[in-house]
Amino acid sequence: MTDPHETQAHEPVEDSLRQVMDLLARHKLVESLVHKQAMPRHELVESLVHKQHLVELTKKLDTLHPADVAYILETLPLEERMLVWDLVKADRDGDILLEVSDAVRESLIAAMDNRELVAAAASLDTDEIADLAPDLPKDVVQELMKSLDQAKRAQVESSLSYDEDSVGGLMDYDFVTIRADVTLEVALRYLRFLSELPPHTDKLFVVDRDGRLTGTLPLKRMLVHDPDAHVAAVMSDDPVLFHPSDPASDAAQAFERYDLVTAPVVDAQNRLVGRLTVDVVLDFIRSESEQDMLQLAGLQEDEDLFTTVWKAAKNRWLWLAINLCTALVASRVVGAFEGSIEKLAALAALMPIVAGMGGNSGNQTSTLVVRGLALGLINKDNAKRILTKELGIALLNGSVWGSVMGVVTYLLYGNAPLGGVMAAAMMLNLLVAALAGYFAPSLIVRSGRDPAFGSAVLTTFITDSMGFFIFLGLATVVLL
Amino acid sequence: MTDPHETQAHEPVEDSLRQVMDLLARHKLVESLVHKQAMPRHELVESLVHKQHLVELTKKLDTLHPADVAYILETLPLEERMLVWDLVKADRDGDILLEVSDAVRESLIAAMDNRELVAAAASLDTDEIADLAPDLPKDVVQELMKSLDQAKRAQVESSLSYDEDSVGGLMDYDFVTIRADVTLEVALRYLRFLSELPPHTDKLFVVDRDGRLTGTLPLKRMLVHDPDAHVAAVMSDDPVLFHPSDPASDAAQAFERYDLVTAPVVDAQNRLVGRLTVDVVLDFIRSESEQDMLQLAGLQEDEDLFTTVWKAAKNRWLWLAINLCTALVASRVVGAFEGSIEKLAALAALMPIVAGMGGNSGNQTSTLVVRGLALGLINKDNAKRILTKELGIALLNGSVWGSVMGVVTYLLYGNAPLGGVMAAAMMLNLLVAALAGYFAPSLIVRSGRDPAFGSAVLTTFITDSMGFFIFLGLATVVLL
Repeated sequence: MTDPHETQAHEPVEDSLRQVMDLLARHKLVESLVHKQAMPRHELVESLVHKQHLVELTKKLDTLHPADVAYILETLPLEERMLVWDLVKADRDGDILLEVSDAVRESLIAAMDNRELVAAAASLDTDEIADLAPDLPKDVVQELMKSLDQAKRAQVESSLSYDEDSVGGLMDYDFVTIRADVTLEVALRYLRFLSELPPHTDKLFVVDRDGRLTGTLPLKRMLVHDPDAHVAAVMSDDPVLFHPSDPASDAAQAFERYDLVTAPVVDAQNRLVGRLTVDVVLDFIRSESEQDMLQLAGLQEDEDLFTTVWKAAKNRWLWLAINLCTALVASRVVGAFEGSIEKLAALAALMPIVAGMGGNSGNQTSTLVVRGLALGLINKDNAKRILTKELGIALLNGSVWGSVMGVVTYLLYGNAPLGGVMAAAMMLNLLVAALAGYFAPSLIVRSGRDPAFGSAVLTTFITDSMGFFIFLGLATVVLL
Repeated sequence: MTDPHETQAHEPVEDSLRQVMDLLARHKLVESLVHKQAMPRHELVESLVHKQHLVELTKKLDTLHPADVAYILETLPLEERMLVWDLVKADRDGDILLEVSDAVRESLIAAMDNRELVAAAASLDTDEIADLAPDLPKDVVQELMKSLDQAKRAQVESSLSYDEDSVGGLMDYDFVTIRADVTLEVALRYLRFLSELPPHTDKLFVVDRDGRLTGTLPLKRMLVHDPDAHVAAVMSDDPVLFHPSDPASDAAQAFERYDLVTAPVVDAQNRLVGRLTVDVVLDFIRSESEQDMLQLAGLQEDEDLFTTVWKAAKNRWLWLAINLCTALVASRVVGAFEGSIEKLAALAALMPIVAGMGGNSGNQTSTLVVRGLALGLINKDNAKRILTKELGIALLNGSVWGSVMGVVTYLLYGNAPLGGVMAAAMMLNLLVAALAGYFAPSLIVRSGRDPAFGSAVLTTFITDSMGFFIFLGLATVVLL
């Protein structure tokens, strides 16, 4: 793999997109003119003006970085997307498939036949093939595996055996190794002999006869040290390293903390098995944070902006179903107090405020707890202090906003006891919210789910139901 | 700046944390024993056993990477944090201050006197000083600036003049330049003469006599090409580059797309003024996504897990105040239908379901739109299609979930017209939700605010109020 950005022209991708859209529009104009005049289509295909725009478009696409083509494909509606996809040179298909989002990838793969897919995938590195494989038809994967030599097949199989959120799932096999007992001079000559280094190479991996990692040799050090020095004397002998089974999120934190560009991956016997690079880590971090955002809104996976209504709706159903269930339970709590509401309809108007403020406040707590857990900032020793702090904040906020709402209620309804009930319910529900926001994430973690996803549902469920119960219950006891 | 990870021992940071906490606990035990026995404190300070744990702790801290010390400081409650901070060697203060979160940084700076602060900051690179300066007392910054030579002072001032979310705010001044007309041999000799290269150096910047950027020379290429070749022949002459005023988020996207490690920053005359590195970009991406998460929950800034209740409460007030206002408006909508609710209290129990489902569905739409806007995937040409799709999904989901709730309502209350009203209101409110989720982000963007923050409030406000209005209004017309 070469680094295409080093060799290709660079202009803002938005400009490229505009040019592509312009060419597409002109192409469509010709098509529609033809359509209106009922010119036979086969003549059209031959017509010069028609071809011209597509030729220009193809040329334009050839100059673009695969990531930029991917971006353009993602912004285009299905029909135009397929037109552009057909114009992309076949030998770039693989790289582009790697860059597009999962949803768009699916639409592109669906438009290719098996032969094209095998050819596209075969042009990739083994770790990239493994990334692509789960989205490919089974017979394509089989054919692909047959076409690889044994070493590469073993790499793909090993990559596929690791979880995609583990270091093994992210690592590549593209590294340069060197022995500790040679001089820098020899090492430099060896590099020149290789004639090309893998992307992102910032260090060589120093291994012994059995392939065990003994250190790393940053290129920077090679360049500034005396060529007669031995690798052993210049290398770093306790580098940051990873194991294939390490969670990718741990590796991402280490890359951030120690400002790494590449890092070796070793097995239990300390044998070098792969390499992590910062670009993959960057993609991982970005996709994790995007997934968190989508999950917070209850979207199970990334949605192509142009997928079918049916598919998109299904993507959103789980969340809506869960929320319908929790809302139904909360509704039954209100139902239990229908007698009170009949007597004092103001309760119905006020109860959403109590529930809503609890939900907002509880989600503030749970967001901080989820983040603290993710960063490893919360442990046995400080957990109690954090809970105490959250309860303190709830008490303070409950007094402040409870009083405000108490006064507002009194002003609206001229009913002082109702104002008092409002204030008390608000205060109590904020305390409930602090407890819910604090305990919900740990409960979700213990159940083995992603706390970012479940915490909001669970917290809101508790603050809604309890908010209704506390407010309507208090009102029934005090006022009626 | 050296890369400390290359020279320091590496063990999981959680292990280090446990050791530190253990030493702290043993230290505290001695203190409390002394306290109980009322031994005079000055004797204690002299006592061997007391000192011993602190000496051990100091040693331990000395072996840790600044980022690991920062992590430990963040997990410790205020008192222990200050104890550990005092033990950290003064010459590492600056690096550690850069690594901790804003909230924790504040607590550490508050514990230092001006002399210490000037010394800590003076040990940093100029771009790092600029990062720290906004958090330092004004007189410290003045003294610090006086202590710098003119070139460095100019760099700090220029860094400070850029927005912290712009390329200028993230760039450093740590790069190696070379002329195009020398041979690689000469370039390599020059590097050896430098004896150390800036962190992350993966390429040299090729400039002409006037400091204008003419290309970049990747170290990788230097190593594999013939030493007699000229830089001009080997360099990449159209590299990805940035301007100081470019938004940092654009640069982050480019780093992701083109897998960059470093990139040159040039002014309007193409003169080289700085350098962006992937570690800074990584930190930017992480902190942006964290901020988005915190903002979604209405937390204005990062909260130290141990800040005072008062400060934390203030951090959360704006959000709660905004939500109280919107909840009050929604409550007045319900208030307008109090007459209907008195007659049929079931309405009060059912109305939160209509509002809640609208809110959830609307936020799914707005999350996708916010994301599409952030990634530049939505433009004039495809906007209408996206809206049509969202309305289609709302129609489908409205039919499905509206029917479900209509049936459930009928089963619960044995009231068929009420079930019909429920179904219709749900359907209508999901359409409202699609419109709100689609238009809210663009409105917020146009008002110059962060769409991730305001979209949820605005969408929920609309779906709540309209949900109540549609359901109660329909019920009043149809049923009463």
